[in-house]
Amino acid sequence: MMQYIEYTPEQREAELASVRQKYEEIKSMGLKLNMARGVPSVDQLKLSLPILDILHMDADCTAEDGTDCRNYGVMDGIPECKRLMADMLGVKPEMVMVGGNSSLNMMFDTISCFMNTPVVPGTPAWSLVPDRKFLCPVPGYDRHFGVTEYFGFEMIPVPMDENGPDMDIVEELVKDPSVKGIWCVPKYSNPSGISYSDEVVRRIAALQPAAKDFRVMWDNAYCIHDLSDEGDEILNIFEECEKTGNIDLVIEFGSTSKITFPGSGVAAMAASENNMKVIKNKYKFQTIGYDKLNMLRHVRFFGDFEGMKAHMKKHAEVLRPRFEIVINKLAENLDELGVIRYNRPRGGYFVCVDVLDGTAKRVVELCKEAGVNLTGAGATYPYGNDPHDSNIRIAPSFPTLEDLSKAMDVFCVCTRLAALEKLSA
Amino acid sequence: MMQYIEYTPEQREAELASVRQKYEEIKSMGLKLNMARGVPSVDQLKLSLPILDILHMDADCTAEDGTDCRNYGVMDGIPECKRLMADMLGVKPEMVMVGGNSSLNMMFDTISCFMNTPVVPGTPAWSLVPDRKFLCPVPGYDRHFGVTEYFGFEMIPVPMDENGPDMDIVEELVKDPSVKGIWCVPKYSNPSGISYSDEVVRRIAALQPAAKDFRVMWDNAYCIHDLSDEGDEILNIFEECEKTGNIDLVIEFGSTSKITFPGSGVAAMAASENNMKVIKNKYKFQTIGYDKLNMLRHVRFFGDFEGMKAHMKKHAEVLRPRFEIVINKLAENLDELGVIRYNRPRGGYFVCVDVLDGTAKRVVELCKEAGVNLTGAGATYPYGNDPHDSNIRIAPSFPTLEDLSKAMDVFCVCTRLAALEKLSA
Repeated sequence: MMQYIEYTPEQREAELASVRQKYEEIKSMGLKLNMARGVPSVDQLKLSLPILDILHMDADCTAEDGTDCRNYGVMDGIPECKRLMADMLGVKPEMVMVGGNSSLNMMFDTISCFMNTPVVPGTPAWSLVPDRKFLCPVPGYDRHFGVTEYFGFEMIPVPMDENGPDMDIVEELVKDPSVKGIWCVPKYSNPSGISYSDEVVRRIAALQPAAKDFRVMWDNAYCIHDLSDEGDEILNIFEECEKTGNIDLVIEFGSTSKITFPGSGVAAMAASENNMKVIKNKYKFQTIGYDKLNMLRHVRFFGDFEGMKAHMKKHAEVLRPRFEIVINKLAENLDELGVIRYNRPRGGYFVCVDVLDGTAKRVVELCKEAGVNLTGAGATYPYGNDPHDSNIRIAPSFPTLEDLSKAMDVFCVCTRLAALEKLSA
Repeated sequence: MMQYIEYTPEQREAELASVRQKYEEIKSMGLKLNMARGVPSVDQLKLSLPILDILHMDADCTAEDGTDCRNYGVMDGIPECKRLMADMLGVKPEMVMVGGNSSLNMMFDTISCFMNTPVVPGTPAWSLVPDRKFLCPVPGYDRHFGVTEYFGFEMIPVPMDENGPDMDIVEELVKDPSVKGIWCVPKYSNPSGISYSDEVVRRIAALQPAAKDFRVMWDNAYCIHDLSDEGDEILNIFEECEKTGNIDLVIEFGSTSKITFPGSGVAAMAASENNMKVIKNKYKFQTIGYDKLNMLRHVRFFGDFEGMKAHMKKHAEVLRPRFEIVINKLAENLDELGVIRYNRPRGGYFVCVDVLDGTAKRVVELCKEAGVNLTGAGATYPYGNDPHDSNIRIAPSFPTLEDLSKAMDVFCVCTRLAALEKLSA
């Protein structure tokens, strides 16, 4: 097979006609499939159904410290849940605050807190820094970028490679005191699926930003979300920060959204004593405490962190075949045409695809017209602006295997069609 | 019986010696009782235990619109829960956003939102108004005052009488464009227990504040929390605002914290389309959606609003004897001594007591030393500053009847002792 770029104009015209016909056939099938968001499938949800039986009318709802979980109180979470989430995040329980149902909510609240309160005594609250900036490794998570856009940060894209964000660029950019932070998904990054190399983690821990109130938003969303027994391993960021004396640099986030039920899970954050002081001084006005019954449900369902990891193996069984379909379809249909690059992630929720420059929007549009919903092209960049118009995030978790297979056929045809249109233009 | 003020110095000295001895006897009992916060008793928690059985392994977790409540999505709440909370708040479902587990959290988030986003296009976000002020009817709810203090508002106390806040004063104060809002607990006000008169509600609805972005924080925390069948009735604020063309003036809040389980309930807010647009434009960055399984649990537990009201009658049965103990003890022990004024609320969670001017702190201190924990004196005023040092909030819900009876005996002795110390000084 030849790459499209090597086709003669005549060959290309013939191929375009042929692919266009395939596309019309597919369109006439009236599909309605969704690969837009990292949403667990029904088969995954079923894995956690027993958690609904944990608490019942006659259950003891007392936490290990005697707290009645049915009543008010305990701002930062019951001890056994702090311990469980601490194990998950790789920190000590005293560094943990257990929040509501969403780590995104805790990240939003953290940035919101720093907008109104100095992160470090003597520095201005971020709302008082008119030219405030935030570093956004790209491609990245659209909801991260949404938070910093909402709060009026200028977002500076930083390219990612297979090791993580380009640290030469990061080290240069943090010399600007108006740069206040960076978004990181260190393991199975959303969407690229890569995990930060040891060197990248060490260089992050060693950052000496001009802004004393620069903070790393370490969204460890996929910390135990391996697709098989051979998952990626990343260095423990807080251990590295201790070595560099930079313990206040990082704030870590995570949740059980993709472990039990999205929307009905437990979220948590971890931070140094100094950071927690600022953050808890907000929470003490914001809440009397989050849902302790749900914390108790989670603790008793898993038993401990080993139980949580065992549960994740069941998720992997459901997810792995889906990722295999995506990779196999891309390989079979597109590898030799020279119109695509993609990763083979060992965990997380996404396959990240780069189609021919200038065709991502067109591919997403063609897919949509054929009934396959993808994340909007550009969503993985701040302000939705992918300068190459090439990055597409495929989320294979939600559809059934059969639907996913169909959806990937559509995607492959659309990618070919958009490439041929572009090359023929 | 004579009032203390009428005692001769000799009588007072004898009484002081006698009361002091009683106090020492009480202190030696080593009590440990709590009347500090409006926390439901274990007997009340038991009323809601069946809600834990509503969802189980084999339960259908689908909302009426087909939403799988186990998965992501639905930012403002499932339709049946919006309807239930709308009925509770006295509004149309389309005005409702269902949030997490706490209306306090939603109030905090609303003020936080307005700090960063213009409430009305063309007005500055509140963080840009350096001399921003908030009206605080007193005595009031300490956690309300905490929120506006956290966000740097100057808090202006407005006296309450038996009809609600003094509206002559409110109407005068809102002529200042830096006055951005007012805290209101319109029914069974925390702590005074009074409900706003029709005239007060109408005058609030008719306010024409200089600040176009002035907002009434209408915390309807005790909207269905009557102690008997003859509860107070307040006017529907949104209906009154419609009459005055002031529909954007008010934002209402409520929750099931004191209906099912505090901390594991469902909170909601209601607002006009204009206000909701600003508020939801924040929520869409802050969350993917709150705990829909818990919403479903609540809807199925109550059936509908009638079911919720029937459930509240059970709470009333548990609470009413507690309020009776408080009132009876105060009446028996203190009425004729002229050292106390108090209300007889028909609902809510508090009995509000005014002891002799300048003795509230001392009473709370004496109680604490005798093992009875009360809300800190002054907590019902902004900055904890009760200018008369006279107001004390009694929260009778949590203790058992027996404990409450003991605690009230302590309170009465301490009130007498503090009054005699003051009059003898």
